[in-house]
Amino acid sequence: MSKIAVLGYGVVGSGVVELFYKNKESILKKIGKDADIKYILDIRDFSDSPYKDKFTKDINDIVNDDEVTMVAECMGGATFAYDFVKACLMSGKNVSTSNKELVAKKGAELLAIAKDKNCNFFFEASVGGAIPIIRPLHKCLAANEITQIAGILNGTTNFILGKMINDNMDFDTALKMAQQLGYAEKDPTADVEGHDACRKICILSSLITGKHIYPESVYTKGITDITLKDVKLAGKFGAAIKLIASVRKLADGKIIPMVSPTLVTYDNLISRVDDVFNAVMVCGDGIDRALFYGRGAGKLPTASAVLGDVIEQLKTEGRGTDTAQTWVDCDNSEIVADYKNAECRMYFRVSGASDIRPENIEIIEDADELVFVTQKISFAEADKLEASITSNGGKVEAKLPVLDI
Amino acid sequence: MSKIAVLGYGVVGSGVVELFYKNKESILKKIGKDADIKYILDIRDFSDSPYKDKFTKDINDIVNDDEVTMVAECMGGATFAYDFVKACLMSGKNVSTSNKELVAKKGAELLAIAKDKNCNFFFEASVGGAIPIIRPLHKCLAANEITQIAGILNGTTNFILGKMINDNMDFDTALKMAQQLGYAEKDPTADVEGHDACRKICILSSLITGKHIYPESVYTKGITDITLKDVKLAGKFGAAIKLIASVRKLADGKIIPMVSPTLVTYDNLISRVDDVFNAVMVCGDGIDRALFYGRGAGKLPTASAVLGDVIEQLKTEGRGTDTAQTWVDCDNSEIVADYKNAECRMYFRVSGASDIRPENIEIIEDADELVFVTQKISFAEADKLEASITSNGGKVEAKLPVLDI
Repeated sequence: MSKIAVLGYGVVGSGVVELFYKNKESILKKIGKDADIKYILDIRDFSDSPYKDKFTKDINDIVNDDEVTMVAECMGGATFAYDFVKACLMSGKNVSTSNKELVAKKGAELLAIAKDKNCNFFFEASVGGAIPIIRPLHKCLAANEITQIAGILNGTTNFILGKMINDNMDFDTALKMAQQLGYAEKDPTADVEGHDACRKICILSSLITGKHIYPESVYTKGITDITLKDVKLAGKFGAAIKLIASVRKLADGKIIPMVSPTLVTYDNLISRVDDVFNAVMVCGDGIDRALFYGRGAGKLPTASAVLGDVIEQLKTEGRGTDTAQTWVDCDNSEIVADYKNAECRMYFRVSGASDIRPENIEIIEDADELVFVTQKISFAEADKLEASITSNGGKVEAKLPVLDI
Repeated sequence: MSKIAVLGYGVVGSGVVELFYKNKESILKKIGKDADIKYILDIRDFSDSPYKDKFTKDINDIVNDDEVTMVAECMGGATFAYDFVKACLMSGKNVSTSNKELVAKKGAELLAIAKDKNCNFFFEASVGGAIPIIRPLHKCLAANEITQIAGILNGTTNFILGKMINDNMDFDTALKMAQQLGYAEKDPTADVEGHDACRKICILSSLITGKHIYPESVYTKGITDITLKDVKLAGKFGAAIKLIASVRKLADGKIIPMVSPTLVTYDNLISRVDDVFNAVMVCGDGIDRALFYGRGAGKLPTASAVLGDVIEQLKTEGRGTDTAQTWVDCDNSEIVADYKNAECRMYFRVSGASDIRPENIEIIEDADELVFVTQKISFAEADKLEASITSNGGKVEAKLPVLDI
């Protein structure tokens, strides 16, 4: 009998317990042997819960119980969760986590402990919620040289942008609505400033390079500056503004990870991803491109991903084999190139008196303001163009990359 | 040193060899040990090939070589491929195949042999080409009760329908173009009549039920009847006509697998899938819905999927664990329900004198012909409606389901 412990009985943790018991019969059939949840760790009181006998407030109950071979961490944050996951791995228990902050900040260390202790550290749920992306990327697509990944990795901002695009709602009103619906936190900083998406692109970047890419190495810009005006002008150009987290591999092997509001043209499926859904496009030399789409957050969707890891572990009783494509710590300056070298088309909205008209631009509007999209240029060249417009008496009101994938 | 044999040096087989050597360094790193292709089986002469020393015309060279632990079958068909795969599995070798006909017709038997011989029979490449779908479905989504799958599983027909939708081309001209571009065979029957998509939905249906679902159990209708007129009227309704392969689970546990041209409304990403791309939507009680999109065929995309299996096997040296969610033979009449019970909205185009106007229909056009979409009805009820229209002096020129997912 395999025993499972669930750390945290919040949205995701309670979802793990609910989905496990809902589908227990078929889950056990897939595992091929008996299994049950033995502990649920939470500091709060759940004496009314049907699972009240499983609750503990003491992580040592779990760490010291040899029957427990699999731990599902659903607490969030990188303080207690870090301590507890570390303790579980140190005692040779396999861990699955939905905690992107933990993986993005401490992945290399935890993966090293798992390797050392010959156990597995899984994190399918940490990127894209329900969407299978970690396992497909490091198993199904293992024959590819991955050249680029780009996608919508934060549902909250996609909901807000969707309201702006489809319902003509301004940013503040859309944010308020997202908060009322429970899609955004009271303090929405982590979502709207792009930090959440940043953590997820760190994880994907680490997976494709084998080196831990830290959040501080990622150029990150949120959506708080996005105006309804730009949303409409993007539409006129034939694109939707989405918060895109991306990483591209350069010819010298370095990467540029980035989070930025980005124009996505309508011929790209990512532009059609609405509501709180996420989508990730992966480009490789074998596959050309593949897209993965689904619910990026929520109780049962995230629980589905955590339990997928749990089932895999209990079924195969794999010992460190599944994380063989792991990553190691590294000096990020050796692998992450300056984002200013990244090249793409750029959207400009310019007010004021400047008469600068770069060659080969596509003009979207030329009335009170000049709105155009450049040919492919680097972020550095875009900055230069902005400087010359400014010194020419103009003001760049908006400057956004266009997704070239 | 792990030794690999590739059966068949056609489009896919040569792609497997090409991609393996192109990315050999990173592939070996992922496997974690040395590996090489030792044999390529093909009856043709490749004495000019850089791999000429690896060619053999005799399957026994492979079967009798204990060094070979992994076989990639890329021959196609269910005659020689069946004999050879069976022989390899019987001798305890792990096999990966891209051959949907083989898996759809002989899967249960081959999986049983693999189980008996404690080896793995992989077939990620058999559905959706480059798209990771088999492994995500039976690993990442293992905690879900899968309720429905629907998607575009044949690139050739999607190309043809795309030309009709976007370029106003009639079926015959579009088919000719597909043949000229190498997307369609000289004899396009397997594609345009839906047989290819049928094999793939058989494989997915077998995966989610654990029972072998045979092609003969699947209601299969191709796209040869689709007219430009219907394509345009579907557009007016806000939908694209796509060849949809689907399976739905009923409350009693039975399933209805089906292949049919289907109206897909624009709010569904599947409607936006153009060219030869494939896309599969999977619905489950945990995830709600997830979509997988990519190249459904082609040399390197299919090779990528085959090699993903090869890498997985050589890395983990798994022994039958990976196919634990396998399927067994069964009397299909016990598990497949009559497709006439399937319910969805139905598109009708009616000519002639009938004055039948069912209640609650959405009328798309009411001129020379009456074109409408019904509320949700069963295929049986749609047949009844057609009969009453016919007996009323009308003629049903087209009758197509609308995707409700």
